[in-house]
Amino acid sequence: MEVHVKQNQSVREQQDNRARMLISCPDGPGIVSAVSRFLFEHGANIVQSDQYTMDPDGGMFFMRIEFDLPELAVNLTGVKQDFEEIAGRFQMKWVINEVSRKKKLAIFVSKEDHCLVELLWHWQAGDLDADIAMVISNHNDMRTYVESFGIPFHHIPVTADTKQEAERRQLEVIGSDIDLIVLARYMQIISPTFIEHYRNRIINIHHSFLPAFVGGKPYAQAYNRGVKIIGATAHYVTEELDGGPIIEQDVQRVSHRDNVNELKRIGRTIERVVLARAVQWHTEDRILVHQNKTVVFN
Amino acid sequence: MEVHVKQNQSVREQQDNRARMLISCPDGPGIVSAVSRFLFEHGANIVQSDQYTMDPDGGMFFMRIEFDLPELAVNLTGVKQDFEEIAGRFQMKWVINEVSRKKKLAIFVSKEDHCLVELLWHWQAGDLDADIAMVISNHNDMRTYVESFGIPFHHIPVTADTKQEAERRQLEVIGSDIDLIVLARYMQIISPTFIEHYRNRIINIHHSFLPAFVGGKPYAQAYNRGVKIIGATAHYVTEELDGGPIIEQDVQRVSHRDNVNELKRIGRTIERVVLARAVQWHTEDRILVHQNKTVVFN
Amino acid sequence: MEVHVKQNQSVREQQDNRARMLISCPDGPGIVSAVSRFLFEHGANIVQSDQYTMDPDGGMFFMRIEFDLPELAVNLTGVKQDFEEIAGRFQMKWVINEVSRKKKLAIFVSKEDHCLVELLWHWQAGDLDADIAMVISNHNDMRTYVESFGIPFHHIPVTADTKQEAERRQLEVIGSDIDLIVLARYMQIISPTFIEHYRNRIINIHHSFLPAFVGGKPYAQAYNRGVKIIGATAHYVTEELDGGPIIEQDVQRVSHRDNVNELKRIGRTIERVVLARAVQWHTEDRILVHQNKTVVFN
Amino acid sequence: MEVHVKQNQSVREQQDNRARMLISCPDGPGIVSAVSRFLFEHGANIVQSDQYTMDPDGGMFFMRIEFDLPELAVNLTGVKQDFEEIAGRFQMKWVINEVSRKKKLAIFVSKEDHCLVELLWHWQAGDLDADIAMVISNHNDMRTYVESFGIPFHHIPVTADTKQEAERRQLEVIGSDIDLIVLARYMQIISPTFIEHYRNRIINIHHSFLPAFVGGKPYAQAYNRGVKIIGATAHYVTEELDGGPIIEQDVQRVSHRDNVNELKRIGRTIERVVLARAVQWHTEDRILVHQNKTVVFN
Repeated sequence: MEVHVKQNQSVREQQDNRARMLISCPDGPGIVSAVSRFLFEHGANIVQSDQYTMDPDGGMFFMRIEFDLPELAVNLTGVKQDFEEIAGRFQMKWVINEVSRKKKLAIFVSKEDHCLVELLWHWQAGDLDADIAMVISNHNDMRTYVESFGIPFHHIPVTADTKQEAERRQLEVIGSDIDLIVLARYMQIISPTFIEHYRNRIINIHHSFLPAFVGGKPYAQAYNRGVKIIGATAHYVTEELDGGPIIEQDVQRVSHRDNVNELKRIGRTIERVVLARAVQWHTEDRILVHQNKTVVFN
Repeated sequence: MEVHVKQNQSVREQQDNRARMLISCPDGPGIVSAVSRFLFEHGANIVQSDQYTMDPDGGMFFMRIEFDLPELAVNLTGVKQDFEEIAGRFQMKWVINEVSRKKKLAIFVSKEDHCLVELLWHWQAGDLDADIAMVISNHNDMRTYVESFGIPFHHIPVTADTKQEAERRQLEVIGSDIDLIVLARYMQIISPTFIEHYRNRIINIHHSFLPAFVGGKPYAQAYNRGVKIIGATAHYVTEELDGGPIIEQDVQRVSHRDNVNELKRIGRTIERVVLARAVQWHTEDRILVHQNKTVVFN
Repeated sequence: MEVHVKQNQSVREQQDNRARMLISCPDGPGIVSAVSRFLFEHGANIVQSDQYTMDPDGGMFFMRIEFDLPELAVNLTGVKQDFEEIAGRFQMKWVINEVSRKKKLAIFVSKEDHCLVELLWHWQAGDLDADIAMVISNHNDMRTYVESFGIPFHHIPVTADTKQEAERRQLEVIGSDIDLIVLARYMQIISPTFIEHYRNRIINIHHSFLPAFVGGKPYAQAYNRGVKIIGATAHYVTEELDGGPIIEQDVQRVSHRDNVNELKRIGRTIERVVLARAVQWHTEDRILVHQNKTVVFN
Repeated sequence: MEVHVKQNQSVREQQDNRARMLISCPDGPGIVSAVSRFLFEHGANIVQSDQYTMDPDGGMFFMRIEFDLPELAVNLTGVKQDFEEIAGRFQMKWVINEVSRKKKLAIFVSKEDHCLVELLWHWQAGDLDADIAMVISNHNDMRTYVESFGIPFHHIPVTADTKQEAERRQLEVIGSDIDLIVLARYMQIISPTFIEHYRNRIINIHHSFLPAFVGGKPYAQAYNRGVKIIGATAHYVTEELDGGPIIEQDVQRVSHRDNVNELKRIGRTIERVVLARAVQWHTEDRILVHQNKTVVFN
């Protein structure tokens, strides 16, 4: 299948000297001035910047800056060290990522393949600027498919009894090098311990209805009440099941003509679109999290 | 304001000989054949027909037919009498409405005016093919506005103590002539007794979120979790609060930049659009209800 | 890759005794009655029916009926013969297709793979109820990918000089067995002669803008005028370039932040969604064509 | 109608000390640093800022800043004077507007009222933070309606012969105090001379199709080709008819069931929504224009 694998040449030209900076801190006078002066004095050119203050009186300040810095690879370490002073002064949580250093993803999947296929398609097309380092599944069904892309596949079965051991093996396989875990219809609950390791770095996707239906068989319930819209929500995983910060949502219209199976089919289509957007935004450092809420600069 | 009142001339030309037929019955062989043969033999020409069977094996059958019948005003009574035989044979719930006989609406409103204003605009523009017979409110705020359209306004205050008496007065004012009650942000719960009088003839509108937020201040909750989409649901009122058959839903995208007030403003815009569609479809006999679900032929 | 190929088991259960009937004819009294009585008397049960009359006075009548007929394989020939009488009486163009006989598709592709990948994904997932009989391309790039699905791939190069010969070879390869040709970003103009062979059976996809941009580089033009929405149109191919009957359209929002490459990327995503819907509707006999317009019963 | 007029109390609390700054200039190092340092040193607190660089190599830089400045009314003049130095250094086009100084609007209308009604509704609801100073029409139909809101109405007839004189009278009536002219379905072409007076300060709305239809009766053409989506475009008026910078667009789905009149009705609904958004963004200083393109920070 090598003929149409394009993941090594992004549609966006490689920008070796570009970096992205994310900042969260309590709002106060002089932050933008201090940061932009700092970058200017270090020879950086700001290419794009977004800023948002949640509640101007004593709220939080969020900023995302893309900048070009000559000889980034050489100079970035110094820039980071120098920035510590400003960061300390304003009590900043911050990060600077090199654009050329692609994020490493581990995709978790169970038996449904639609979200995995979508991510791999975007990756192949060069639209997902990340490295898919591995796929982990509690089933063996996707092995051939995943390996046909040259991506390592790890089959780690999970039962009620082996759950703790399975997570231990997952962490072992993942190692220390993975930036983001994507639950692409992975039908197992993640333990608080595991979540703690990857706080705001595990993205999950699930169907969503308007209104929500409590209890089992939500598609059947939605059908029985004749909903006209079904949707999907991508969010960071927290200890509260499906209650973490929302990254992206989208919907599609349905009608009484759509039976339960067709609602599920439409739901799958929305899920893959919404998950792909959420993963892309994370890999492009577009998401900041504060409490249980995201700020998405897209 | 008379200059731009156009409610007497619909954008759709008056079709004096047109009628609409709605049928629900258990599915079985020969229904379409019997109905269409009946209409043909009575000289009617079918202009549009929609049919839907919920679950082909032993499910329900739903049909909507628009037909033209020469001298409808004279002939319809006979047609209805003759149809009883077929209706009995197939255990049909059915109705035939003349298109030229506009439905009479009573609009209930409290203090928020956006849904009322939207309905009056559509009515003025000739897009809502109905008579707005009266507006009833538990507050007096809208009186001048409503009366400027030449529409009767009834102020019937409601308190916890006077609720039963207020509903008695509402039913008195409404009389026996109203086809549809529209709760255009009417912030009072309707009693089961009242609902029983207007089963599947009371339409309510409320905001909806993805997912739903249980408890008070839903917009604040939605803001705090950073929802990306908010919506509205129009439904028939049943004894279960906001749990009746859904007629229409729609949504709009929002972002972290929208504060709680802006979420509310966007919510109002969706509410008025969704309510207007639901009311229009009801007045055009496009909705059939089965159990807790609608079939909307739009 | 066999593990997740599901094309042999549709999400919709195989319904061996189900058929679909499409009718177009001049409107007149008694059509529905005659057709439904005919089906009833032949033992068929109507599962779903849609009807539409374009302009009630002397317009065209369109109908789609799904019905179940016991022992369809045995009885359908007789039904078709008997129907000739009614068809003649009302000057009908009509067809009856067995649901269990999947349509055979030939997909034409050039170098862009996104539409092809989407169709194959839907096909694998069992959502596209058709047989993909072959892929034809004027380039050899997709061979490995297509053949990995077990689908025959034909490389037929096209140059200005060999165009006529290339079309002759295409028709030869296609043979007499193909129901639908899908131009999945096939970047060659189809000759009138070829179109005539597959009238209303060639579906094309192209990007669309609001407003349209005349001349070359439409994405650059769209970028330069700052469009906020880009879209795609799927249509049947006629002699007028990109001017045939529209089957489906959809759009996505964009902003000034999207550069020309990103507009193209978003355009690709819409194209694949829109084309997949159009192809699915054709395979499910949901589309009737009259003059330069479609009636889509979806 | 006074009871529900709320235009004096915005849903967003009055922020007397808030201002908005818009900047366009050739990109180069140090701009953000210089501007943010300037504001900091003048005691301003940046509440929100958006920045965008079109083509990082030698492109244009755009910025929008909302800031709070103590005793703005007293201090703003000095701030503006001091800013001249920076503006000159970076060749900036710039403006600083006080949020508390509402923009003054003149609405032009002909016979169709839907866009006017929508703007007045938003204004009444307090959602449109502007003063509607007058309505000018080439017909007298809306006088009573407009005056019922206490808004001056000027009837200035236009014929082929009197066009020049009519524009002279319009400019006279408008005076020197109007910030924005909204063509709310004003069916007259504006002359280049008039446009020059209000460069990027005249907003027009028109329907849009996918694809565009050249020539007369676009709705009939759209119907005849069976379009599935219709839309509307709001843009600044330039000398090229309907060719100016696009501010906002939106669409709605339609089907073969919608006849030409219904397409027009749906078109009206989209037009009013799109125009209202464009006007709101202009009044909130969210739009920068460069060449024939807008940058909208919304």
